[in-house]
Amino acid sequence: MVSHTWRIGLIGFGNVGQGFVRILANKGGKLRERYGFEFKIVGIADPVKGSVFDPEGLDVKKLIELIDKYGHIRDYPSGRKDIDSIFLCRSDVVDIIVEVTPTNIETGEPGLTHIREALKHGKHVVTSNKGPIAIAYPELKKLAEENGVFLRFEGVVLSGTPAINLALEALAGADIKRVQGIVNGTTNFILTKMEEGMTYEEALKEAQRLGYAEADPTADVEGWDAAIKTVIIANVLMGGSITIKDVDREGITKITLEDVRKAKEEGCRIKLIAEVVKEEGTIKASVKPRKIPLAHPLANVMGATNALTFETDHLGPVTIVGPGAGRVETGQAILTDVLAIHRYTHGGRI
Amino acid sequence: MVSHTWRIGLIGFGNVGQGFVRILANKGGKLRERYGFEFKIVGIADPVKGSVFDPEGLDVKKLIELIDKYGHIRDYPSGRKDIDSIFLCRSDVVDIIVEVTPTNIETGEPGLTHIREALKHGKHVVTSNKGPIAIAYPELKKLAEENGVFLRFEGVVLSGTPAINLALEALAGADIKRVQGIVNGTTNFILTKMEEGMTYEEALKEAQRLGYAEADPTADVEGWDAAIKTVIIANVLMGGSITIKDVDREGITKITLEDVRKAKEEGCRIKLIAEVVKEEGTIKASVKPRKIPLAHPLANVMGATNALTFETDHLGPVTIVGPGAGRVETGQAILTDVLAIHRYTHGGRI
Repeated sequence: MVSHTWRIGLIGFGNVGQGFVRILANKGGKLRERYGFEFKIVGIADPVKGSVFDPEGLDVKKLIELIDKYGHIRDYPSGRKDIDSIFLCRSDVVDIIVEVTPTNIETGEPGLTHIREALKHGKHVVTSNKGPIAIAYPELKKLAEENGVFLRFEGVVLSGTPAINLALEALAGADIKRVQGIVNGTTNFILTKMEEGMTYEEALKEAQRLGYAEADPTADVEGWDAAIKTVIIANVLMGGSITIKDVDREGITKITLEDVRKAKEEGCRIKLIAEVVKEEGTIKASVKPRKIPLAHPLANVMGATNALTFETDHLGPVTIVGPGAGRVETGQAILTDVLAIHRYTHGGRI
Repeated sequence: MVSHTWRIGLIGFGNVGQGFVRILANKGGKLRERYGFEFKIVGIADPVKGSVFDPEGLDVKKLIELIDKYGHIRDYPSGRKDIDSIFLCRSDVVDIIVEVTPTNIETGEPGLTHIREALKHGKHVVTSNKGPIAIAYPELKKLAEENGVFLRFEGVVLSGTPAINLALEALAGADIKRVQGIVNGTTNFILTKMEEGMTYEEALKEAQRLGYAEADPTADVEGWDAAIKTVIIANVLMGGSITIKDVDREGITKITLEDVRKAKEEGCRIKLIAEVVKEEGTIKASVKPRKIPLAHPLANVMGATNALTFETDHLGPVTIVGPGAGRVETGQAILTDVLAIHRYTHGGRI
């Protein structure tokens, strides 16, 4: 089996892109030894952090050093700086595009354009960008197939905690009838803190202080982030074709300390539960606060941790619990997908 | 991509083999449609249930009908009956050997011989047989590589609940530093019943009545079954090379109702915990009853359910919870491995 060096183009150098490059910088030798995986980052395109391109490969340790010191890579000491994301998608020296720009749940842009362009130009694509997958999965899947390349996206749900690859690969052959999950860490953190006695407002402030919640927390607390993940679960794992408008969505902003206490008295916990049910071919999707008994596998998932329970025909419920976000955690999602492409194109030895 | 019909030889037609064939009988059309997976069972070899061989393929519905009606397939209406397991391992018309004979944790036989023979003759092997994997993984892995075939064994731990494939594939790139788990359903069922107030003896009888425990329950209650799985976790997932003698093993037979009550008062539960820790390259493995706090992800795994927590460098703890045994559940493990071989040899589309 001839090994070859994967030439990676990275679009977006925010938290996820940095997390991925950080892993490569720390673990390159181990990845070569364990998986026969050789790589070069040949280009990075980010309108804020800076863009740089060098077919010979960038120095990953240098990239991390620059970002840690200056917060950008605009002064990387060599390579071309006059390139952009589309240049990378079309470049002859790129084999894999890693698309990790911010998610836009309405248009999917700019990720959608990047992914389309890369697939059309015969590049494998790995992404953690929820927008394009939620909005255009069937189209992108077809485009990947037509061009004989892979499109992989473990990071869109539960970051590096296996969810997508678990369901599509490790559970292959089983039918998933229902998925229930805690897919947003911020709201689960807030609900956990409320159980400890904080009001919603106090818990939200604490989440913001710790960097779990944005200054404008709407996307999390109103259930939008959970809803877009629900769309992905429905469309990718259960053969649905729904949009975010089809998700029966309710956030946690109306939950009071009194509600939380009352649930506790009843031996329950309030959790923001994402659910997709398939019945006679029809998909129903919702994101709602629910009172669930303590014996329920999702009841004991606390803090920023996420979890998904897959109800399957052959196994009954299978639950996975792990981190739902984070720089290195989502970097791991990118890494595992890149390694999967390597494995599938190099004989599948594990 | 040219599809082709996989010719499967099944060695062992007990619970797991029947579970697998039952799934194929029910779901053949769906598997073809969803994965482009075409198959024939060309032979079954079982010294008790009967052996039959037909290169044209056996009728899976007929096999299930016979086993349900008579408990054996010795009167299957066509094909050769004068074949045995070694014949299947060497047959030119077999592509995949499914080895599902009973586990022998001391010698690994007869599974070990079957697997060696099949790999040497260029057959892919899928097994749920713990013995050969625990005893001879490095040798068998090398043999598979030398012969350009796959050896897969999701079913050896947690039946069809993804554990092996989860760790090796979906978590690829992460280092597993520690694994803790509940890997024996019988003992977990007994401990659950004791928490409900039964004595050890009463709980064991109940487990026997429900078919969870054997008439001689030693393998389960003394921790041997958990220990052999611990060896597999250490050697396959964490690069160890230990034997069952290296596992610090203690069963649950000395646990009293008083111990269980006392733990409960302290906000804990007693669970039989399999653990493998890797520290500075050294592997330590144990199976022991432990008092764990209710907030621990394994504390709420009740009844015959199993679970594994992987402590990883990139993700922290990742826990999978699901069934640990069962006819269809282990049949699903076989199916997912066969589908993985299909996927790896047909371009990896998911």
